[in-house]
Amino acid sequence: MLDNVRVVLVNTSHPGNIGGAARAMKNMGLTRLVLVEPRRFPDQNAGARAAGADDVLAGAVVVDTLEEAIADCVLVLGTSARDRRIPWPVVDPREAAHKVLDQLAELPDAQVALVFGREDAGLTSDELQRCQFHVHIPSNPDFSSLNLAAAVQVVAYELRMLALQRQSLPTSIQKVETSSTANEMPTTADDMEQYFAHLERVLVEIGFLDPHQPRHLMPRLRRLYGRIRVNRMEMNILRGILTETQKAIGMKATGERRR
Amino acid sequence: MLDNVRVVLVNTSHPGNIGGAARAMKNMGLTRLVLVEPRRFPDQNAGARAAGADDVLAGAVVVDTLEEAIADCVLVLGTSARDRRIPWPVVDPREAAHKVLDQLAELPDAQVALVFGREDAGLTSDELQRCQFHVHIPSNPDFSSLNLAAAVQVVAYELRMLALQRQSLPTSIQKVETSSTANEMPTTADDMEQYFAHLERVLVEIGFLDPHQPRHLMPRLRRLYGRIRVNRMEMNILRGILTETQKAIGMKATGERRR
Repeated sequence: MLDNVRVVLVNTSHPGNIGGAARAMKNMGLTRLVLVEPRRFPDQNAGARAAGADDVLAGAVVVDTLEEAIADCVLVLGTSARDRRIPWPVVDPREAAHKVLDQLAELPDAQVALVFGREDAGLTSDELQRCQFHVHIPSNPDFSSLNLAAAVQVVAYELRMLALQRQSLPTSIQKVETSSTANEMPTTADDMEQYFAHLERVLVEIGFLDPHQPRHLMPRLRRLYGRIRVNRMEMNILRGILTETQKAIGMKATGERRR
Repeated sequence: MLDNVRVVLVNTSHPGNIGGAARAMKNMGLTRLVLVEPRRFPDQNAGARAAGADDVLAGAVVVDTLEEAIADCVLVLGTSARDRRIPWPVVDPREAAHKVLDQLAELPDAQVALVFGREDAGLTSDELQRCQFHVHIPSNPDFSSLNLAAAVQVVAYELRMLALQRQSLPTSIQKVETSSTANEMPTTADDMEQYFAHLERVLVEIGFLDPHQPRHLMPRLRRLYGRIRVNRMEMNILRGILTETQKAIGMKATGERRR
């Protein structure tokens, strides 16, 4: 049930924490680890702290950017310790588990990412804006930063608790009218990125967005569209509106898929 | 509320785990640490992993036996990974949190101990028999042994979650802030109607919507935007985009509020 859930660690400094995260994952039945630009990996300290979760480490995928790590995911949750200027939908780890398992109940093939930031600085604003939900582990306000592996442990624990609960109540897993048609399929993180890039270009072209004074316009629009689960048909409509706007103002439509 | 809850670590081998446990405790608002015959303590590895929870380490009480560590406690829970020959009341971490907080609600001065065993061998049968309840963290049966600090993290997390719930405090920070400012207030149905009317005009003007063959475009967009709870600031942005689009294509902006 949790095979489609990946843990993404961004820019981890200490390989011991990668090992600790791998152990926590395997303890809780998670296996898929993606590392975005780890400082040191592979490393013997990772193996030592993994304490038997070597298979999770051996299967870890190393990539250069968060974008690559989540490209095919329809649901992305990122952990955040801090208050942000732009409020974002924030869930605690228990609510996060519900989001994940609800998504997988609805669409068993969906890919889901749980993203964890740097030991010292967490995720950047830009990275957080790529997440539909921010997961905040309720912690002591005077000492709020958990060890990275401990944070992975807590979120993975909630996932396992809920997965076990749902399995013992098979009647409650009844699918709510699975929307099987292609049109109703959710968009991926990559689709959304292409949309935001297109939207930003058009907003500049119509003179609504000043690239030199962007203020918080794009983050706000990311938050807005990130809250909906846009499906593929809707994405075609949204992209179509942008392309027609460009034609109407005499710009060359730049909305073609880049790849 | 959690001042009377102590964490007891029995015969810990690796001082790093003592530090990790101290950090997890302080993150979750626990402060009282008791060490039963630690192999090495104090130790610089404990301080390093504590990462700022030095006060918890400095206040740690070192004793020779579990008996001393729990002498004044009215409720003792011990973590156990294994099935035991002698059946014992076993609770998961969430149920354990209820046991602890129920006890403290009934008797606020009660002392409570959460006991964690050795990294390699857990608690002995004799030690487990001194606990009223055994706490079992539900884990992968093929890889069930959590890191010591990770186990402390999970149990302390459940305690904090329940303590916050019982105090009616939010477990995710967002809930406090969200609705306070005018910008974050939700839009009304009337606001949404005006938006859809404006959107429809612009879609006609840019040539995306043919009024004679509207197909299902507007209902689809209604369904899309209806799923988001658009707030007032976001509505200003969405209306602003439409108005700027009209200006860019040389139409008179029709987006002014009608009243």
